[in-house]
Formats: sequence, structure tokens, C-alpha cells
Amino acid sequence: MNIVDIINKKRKNIELNDEEIKYAIEGYVANKIKDYQMSALLMAICLNGMTDHETAVLTEVMYKSGDIINLDKIKSTKVDKHSTGGVGDKTTLILLPLVASCGVVAPKMSGRGLGFTGGTIDKLESIPGFNTKLDINDFMEQVNEIGVAIASQTGNLVPADKKIYALRDVTGTVESIPLIASSIMSKKLASGADTIVIDLKVGNGALMKDYESAKKLAETMVNIGKSHNRQVICVLTDMNQPLGCAIGNSLEVKESIDVLNNRGPKDITNLIIALATIMVSCGLGISFEEANKKVHDNLNNGNAYVKFLELVKKQGGRIEELDVAKNVVSIKSRLSGYINEIKTDDLGEISRKLGGGRYEKNDEINFGVGLVLSKKLGDYVMEDEEILKVYFDDKSVSVDEILKCFKIETNKINSNPLIYEVIK
Amino acid sequence: MNIVDIINKKRKNIELNDEEIKYAIEGYVANKIKDYQMSALLMAICLNGMTDHETAVLTEVMYKSGDIINLDKIKSTKVDKHSTGGVGDKTTLILLPLVASCGVVAPKMSGRGLGFTGGTIDKLESIPGFNTKLDINDFMEQVNEIGVAIASQTGNLVPADKKIYALRDVTGTVESIPLIASSIMSKKLASGADTIVIDLKVGNGALMKDYESAKKLAETMVNIGKSHNRQVICVLTDMNQPLGCAIGNSLEVKESIDVLNNRGPKDITNLIIALATIMVSCGLGISFEEANKKVHDNLNNGNAYVKFLELVKKQGGRIEELDVAKNVVSIKSRLSGYINEIKTDDLGEISRKLGGGRYEKNDEINFGVGLVLSKKLGDYVMEDEEILKVYFDDKSVSVDEILKCFKIETNKINSNPLIYEVIK
Repeated sequence: MNIVDIINKKRKNIELNDEEIKYAIEGYVANKIKDYQMSALLMAICLNGMTDHETAVLTEVMYKSGDIINLDKIKSTKVDKHSTGGVGDKTTLILLPLVASCGVVAPKMSGRGLGFTGGTIDKLESIPGFNTKLDINDFMEQVNEIGVAIASQTGNLVPADKKIYALRDVTGTVESIPLIASSIMSKKLASGADTIVIDLKVGNGALMKDYESAKKLAETMVNIGKSHNRQVICVLTDMNQPLGCAIGNSLEVKESIDVLNNRGPKDITNLIIALATIMVSCGLGISFEEANKKVHDNLNNGNAYVKFLELVKKQGGRIEELDVAKNVVSIKSRLSGYINEIKTDDLGEISRKLGGGRYEKNDEINFGVGLVLSKKLGDYVMEDEEILKVYFDDKSVSVDEILKCFKIETNKINSNPLIYEVIK
Repeated sequence: MNIVDIINKKRKNIELNDEEIKYAIEGYVANKIKDYQMSALLMAICLNGMTDHETAVLTEVMYKSGDIINLDKIKSTKVDKHSTGGVGDKTTLILLPLVASCGVVAPKMSGRGLGFTGGTIDKLESIPGFNTKLDINDFMEQVNEIGVAIASQTGNLVPADKKIYALRDVTGTVESIPLIASSIMSKKLASGADTIVIDLKVGNGALMKDYESAKKLAETMVNIGKSHNRQVICVLTDMNQPLGCAIGNSLEVKESIDVLNNRGPKDITNLIIALATIMVSCGLGISFEEANKKVHDNLNNGNAYVKFLELVKKQGGRIEELDVAKNVVSIKSRLSGYINEIKTDDLGEISRKLGGGRYEKNDEINFGVGLVLSKKLGDYVMEDEEILKVYFDDKSVSVDEILKCFKIETNKINSNPLIYEVIK
């Protein structure tokens, strides 16, 4: 077997067999196959695709390329939640304590963000003292004790994905459903959960810009799950505007606390309820109606927030010291009308410019900076009325740049639903 | 501008603009763009193709990436000849003295072969004393004096092609019409000829295995020529068997001498006459009929052979010392029937195994070894009748391996014509 033959085969759109996929991925991880060969193969996969079987095999070879987390010491059904990511996405911070308060066991290994804003781990670290570096035994002990733990990934989890993802990033080979699906699913499979709920974002602030591709990605991931005996449930949700109002690490933690107390923005609250209902239903083996009632109850009676405080305290966080940037400026609209479009990616980029996200892996994040929207899609804004607040420190962006993110028109355009479809 | 955007654009099948192509190629030659990025771009080109305009720009950027040979000191119309290569292809050795004897100026810069048998330069070097290392002034002086010179490429001609070709070879991105066309044409444009006659081989011993792709390649090269004000004439010829009977360096020189004396195999003689007629007609600006007569005359009256001897002597060769391997074995057929198929590539590979070709760039060639066919496609062979002779020295191959190259059947299949079509 040699890699040039394998690349040629994929270029000619002939299905690769299991051994060929194994040879390519294992050889690449072992540095026997060169970057320039892998990037050619990845481009051929981008353009010619992969069958469901090829994608399942690719995922399996990838997830077996490194350590596999064994969560057997946690006795209940373990429900994992994953989001494909977007601007203002703080769902994990809210969802995990919420479902834990309903009795679902929620162990979560999460990554740092290399994007507009930090990842879940960065957001949690904006709480002074919060320790995300739990070793696997402490992690499982905490899950058994309070039902929830959120830790940064440790060990050598899916090295094949790390190496391939870094290469895809610099070779124009990111946009490929089999590659995206295998990247996500290899990490989920290696993390040891039984049921995986995926919040798949679609829109101008998401990796998947169009509905059809997102649906195909969802189906691909559900299929991968089936071929590995895991239940995968994909919820396709809108990302044509930031989720909630806050963008930025400690600002998002503050908003999460609002949602946990049932006084947060409507969109993120609705999304949280929908995802939590699925997770509680699967985790406890109860009906959707019953699960939905539990979720509502625990948002109303304070149980969800109490669980959040318990989680923070257990991992050393001092929530009372949570702080946002001292300098706040109110940005006002220059015209009156309906907000018909929000350039979500550009708002994310502005938050990163303020210091809220990373450009390079080792950049330090300024936790307190960011944006808080006063208006969302479909809202009417008057001339000179506040459209958002900027929280800043040592870096600034221009007002023009911010206002360019909003399209304001006389006639209102109907906006998309928040939740499009559940695929399982 | 950045390379990832350019790769993404080509992946999405959007036409690249001139600046983008220039940026990619020049950046790669300057080592600013990485191998793994270029290979991803090349794969996207393999699968999404290039427009005629993109291909012309790619060719231009490539040929301007290094030295450009200025042949202005040669006053007449300069006709260059190129072959896409095949097993037993010794046309250059015959064609150049022949057309020079007709009065056409034929300066030829040629490469060494990295393939089954040597290239033109290797074949000439099998003549003891033959010097192919002419500097550009001596080269032009000789062309002005005797009308013909054959030298190895000097200087830094088309470094972009050298670098890209080496990468394509190890990344499964060889088979792409725009990439093949720009590789050939960039070298031809940098070599300074006015008219370029290309012998484009099609068949199981050629790079282009099928007729439709070969035709598309021919059209692409003719178009590139037009956009650079050069006349390009492509002759599509059959390569489903070796050209002539001899495979191997000095064996092919011997056969060339036979053809120049009009006693060579019919197929190569006919091909030579067709190509020479085109070159003489273009070079002298006379009709095909007139050119054809001149070519026939000079093969019959010895003028072509005299010019060959003049060329060899001028470049220091001692033709009387030309030698072939001492050990000769006759391979006999094990059955009777018509030869309906010859595995041309495999015969070439056998010649290489005997020492007649290179595996690595710096391998030394054993000039005297090779094969001489006694039978060709469509011929009838009796059981125990000779099918070919093997000339060998210190390396051997098995009789079985040789006989496997021939498919012998009771019923005769019609063979392909030698010349399919002329595209200009």
C-alpha cells in the first residue's frame, strides 16, 4: 500500500477501503505520510466526499489514535452535549447545571477557544479561582458526588484530529461534511458518553452557513453514532445573530446566571429549555413532556442556579468576584428602522479585537471585555437609541465598524425560527 | 491576498484572477507558500479544472519564473519539436537531422529521462564522445552553421515547473490537463521557438491513456500557444506498442540510423515523415505536398543521414564506436496466434530493470542494454518463433515476465492507426 495510490483513488472518486483509510491516518499521525500528501488527500475528500461507511471508518481510526476516556466509574447514563460553536454561545455553562439539577449525570470535557470568543473553559476561568484542571479520578468523583463537572481536556485525546485540523485550517480544506463530522464525532466517541446531544448552528455566525449542508452534517453524525452504538441527537439551531445578548467571557457568565434564574434573554432561554428537555428525557429515560416540566420547574424554583453555584464552589470559583471591564460606552443607532440583519461573524471579530478572543493558541484573553446587545433581529430601533454597549479595556474599535454589523431598514423582514429541526 | 483564500476559491470552483495565480506560483517558488498548501491547490485544480484563461496565465507565470532563452541570433524561423514521451520514442534523433537537411533550422534543448528509458540526451550520450553540454553561444553558432544542435538544458529554466512537477509526482496530482499543458508549454515558451510541433502520445504506454483526454490536452496547448503568439501543432499518435522495434539507448540510436537510411521499421518511418512534413512546411513556409516531397527525397538520397553524421561529428561523437550489450538472448513465443495487445509500459519497465533507465535522478544508465522486438501488434507469431531479443549485461529479467507483455490470440483484432489527428 502506498499513499500516492490512495490519493489517486480518492481523486478518481473510488471508495477507499478500511485498510487504506487506516494506513493514511495512522501513517500521518506517525509522521510517515507528509503534510503535503495529507493535504492533497483532504482536498480530494472535500471535493469528492466520502461514503457513510468511509466516514464511519475515518472516525473510528481517528478516535482510536490516542487516549480513550473510560467513564465506567460513573454508573448512570452519561449525556454529553456539544455545540458546533457560534458567537455568544454560552449554552454549556447553563445547560449542564440545569440538567444536573434534574438528576442527569453531566460530565463535560471541554476545549479552549481559538476563535472570536473563548471556549467554555475560558468562560469558566473568568470566574476567579475556578479550576478546570481536574485529573480523571477527581473528575469522576465530583460527577458521582454532585452530578456535574466541567474540566479541560487532558491526556492525548484524538491526536489525529489535532494534527489534521491544524492542517485543514491552513489548506482551505475546512468545509467538508465528512471531515467536520469525523472531527466532532471522534472527540465525542473518545470522551466516553453514551448519548450525545449536538447543538448544530446554522447561519452567518456559524461554520455551516446554509441549512442543507447543516442537515447533511447532522445526518452524517447520527449515522456515525449508529455505527458505534451511541445515540446522537442533532438540534439544528439558528446562528444569524449572537445567541442571547452578551459576547465576551465574563459578560457571558453574567448572562448565564440570568438565564439560570429565568430572567435571561428569550432566545437563549428557549434554546436551553429545548436542549435540556432532550438531555433530561434521554438521561432519565422519561417522556419529553415530563422532562420539559422538570426543566421549567428547576429554572423557576432556583434549583438550576443552586446547582451552578455548587459546581462553581466545588471547582474553587469565587462567583462574587466575577468582574467585567470598567469602561463602558453606549453605541447609538444613526437611523430608525427594523434590524433586519446582524453580521454575527463581524461582531465576534470585534469582541476578539477588544481582547476577548485569541488569534494565536497562546494569546491571553482579557476576560472582562465584550459587547452586550440592546437590540436583536426584528427589533425596532430609533435614531439615537442604544443598539449595544461596548465593554473595553486597553484596545478599542471604531463606532463605524460596530454599526456596519447592523442592517436597519424601514420594512421588517421575518426572521428565522431559533430551532429548525431535531435529527436523530 | 492570502493563499488559503485562493485555495478556498478554487475549491469552490470560482475562476482565479491573474494576480491570484501569480501570487500562488511566485510565492511557492520563493518558499513563502508551503508544499502542503500548493498540493491542496493542485488537487483542487485536478478536480475542478481551469479555464483556458487561467491555464494561459498559469503557463505565463511559470515560464517567466526563471531564465528565458533568447534565440534571436538565429535568423530563420525556429521550429521546436516535443514529444510527451513513450517507450521506444527516438523521434528527436531522426527528425532533427532530417528537417535540418531540408533547410529547417532545428535548435533543440532536451532533458534527461526519469523513466523507462533515457531521454534524448541520454540516447545521444550512448554515442562515445558526444558532448551535449553546449553553452548558449556555441549552441547558436552551431545552429547557424549546420542548421541543427541538440544540447541539454542549461540555466535555471522554469524553476516553477521543476518544483511543482516534483510535488505533483508524490501527491497524486499528475493527471490534470491544465497542469500537464502548462508544464509542457511553459518549458517550450521559455525555450524561444516560434513554432512548436508536439507529438502527443495516446495509449497504454503513454501518460494520456484515452483519446478524449489527449484531444483536450492538445486543444489546451494550442490555445496556450495562441495566447502567447506561438504556433502550436499537436499530432495525436498511437502508443499502444513501442515506437519502432528498439527499446534502450544505443539500440535506439542504431534504429534511428536505419530510419535515416530509409530501412527502418514502417511505423516509426511513417511517423517521422508525418512530423517532418509539418515541420518543413511551417519552417520554410511551403505547402504540405512540397514539404512531403523534400522529406521523402532526403530520406532516399542519404542527405538526412549525412546531416546526422555532421551533427554527431560536430558535437564530438564517434558513431563508429557505438556499442550494444554483448549478451543477447532470443525470446520465443509459447503459442501461435496474432499479437493483439502489447503491454507497452511493462516492456519499458523491463528495459529499465536491465539498466536502461533510471529509478532515481542520479542513477547511471547502462547504454547498451534493452529489447528489440521481432513482432509488433497485429503480427502473426508461431509457437517457438522469436518474439523479441534481449540485450543484457549484469542484470536480468525472467522470460515469463517478458512473455506476459504479449497477448496472443487466434483471431486478429484490428489495431489502431498510428496517427489519429492533427490539432492546430
